[in-house]
Amino acid sequence: MNELDKYIRSIPDFPEEGIIFRDVTTVLADPEGLQIAINKMQSLTDDLEYDVIVGAEARGFLFGMPMAYNKKKAFVPIRKKGKLPCDTYEMEYELEYGTAVLEIHKDAIKKGQKVLLVDDLIATGGTTEAMIRLIEEAGGEVVGVCVMIELAGLEGRGRIAPYRLDAAITYEGK
Amino acid sequence: MNELDKYIRSIPDFPEEGIIFRDVTTVLADPEGLQIAINKMQSLTDDLEYDVIVGAEARGFLFGMPMAYNKKKAFVPIRKKGKLPCDTYEMEYELEYGTAVLEIHKDAIKKGQKVLLVDDLIATGGTTEAMIRLIEEAGGEVVGVCVMIELAGLEGRGRIAPYRLDAAITYEGK
Repeated sequence: MNELDKYIRSIPDFPEEGIIFRDVTTVLADPEGLQIAINKMQSLTDDLEYDVIVGAEARGFLFGMPMAYNKKKAFVPIRKKGKLPCDTYEMEYELEYGTAVLEIHKDAIKKGQKVLLVDDLIATGGTTEAMIRLIEEAGGEVVGVCVMIELAGLEGRGRIAPYRLDAAITYEGK
Repeated sequence: MNELDKYIRSIPDFPEEGIIFRDVTTVLADPEGLQIAINKMQSLTDDLEYDVIVGAEARGFLFGMPMAYNKKKAFVPIRKKGKLPCDTYEMEYELEYGTAVLEIHKDAIKKGQKVLLVDDLIATGGTTEAMIRLIEEAGGEVVGVCVMIELAGLEGRGRIAPYRLDAAITYEGK
């Protein structure tokens, strides 16, 4: 069994029937769980060379920042529309109902910098794919995606291929 | 001069005339700036004893999580209404126009645990005060507040007194 499983709170039929919601707050609320999660994500990506970690508002910040600090890298946020104060690139992506827009500062990534994209979770991969495109529009080269949780039943791994994906824990369902 | 000043992007008259917006993304986008910011916030609070770091969505996550990792503490998020999946305590607070609601999981903090509240910035102190009250409602004891930036002209320090406030950089204006 994966050592992280016992720290994750699984909530059946939330937000709708058939979905098991995976709550990462219980991992971080435990000092040991927090160490295990960050250390695992770091060791999985230890062979990668990169300059910048990008994390998306809000839960991507939780995992991306300690990794950036530990590796002495830069951290660049992707935020929801209207939150970043300077010129941005925008990327629209599809939600279950409607669309949303993500932004990144135009000057945050230098052309050709290698980027590790960090997030809490990959589900269908739609948001992850939009973030990859946004980083590339900003001049970055995505060398990998690292998440704490992969919901394999939703097939995000296939959607973002051939980009490399590392997950600290993989659940087979959705 | 404060060593962090050169990393902070200051945007005059944003979002309105007379306000200088302090952009922390340029600190984190520089690997040295990121190290200096986190190390400074840690050294300022090194004498405090606490069990949990609480950070608020979204920018509080950026500073709170690396500190929690480094100190081997728990991290508990405060989020905007509707984002946390389990039972929460709520706290309404005033914005310039209208109000907003913050939430914390009811079971996130054990009764009597000591809490360090970490955020990116303190301005008028209204949000900080609401977060302190929310942590106390959840059973925590706030031993201090640590921010990267204090806008001293807006007098947040006085508003949250007698709680201790440490800031990595203080600007006299607003």
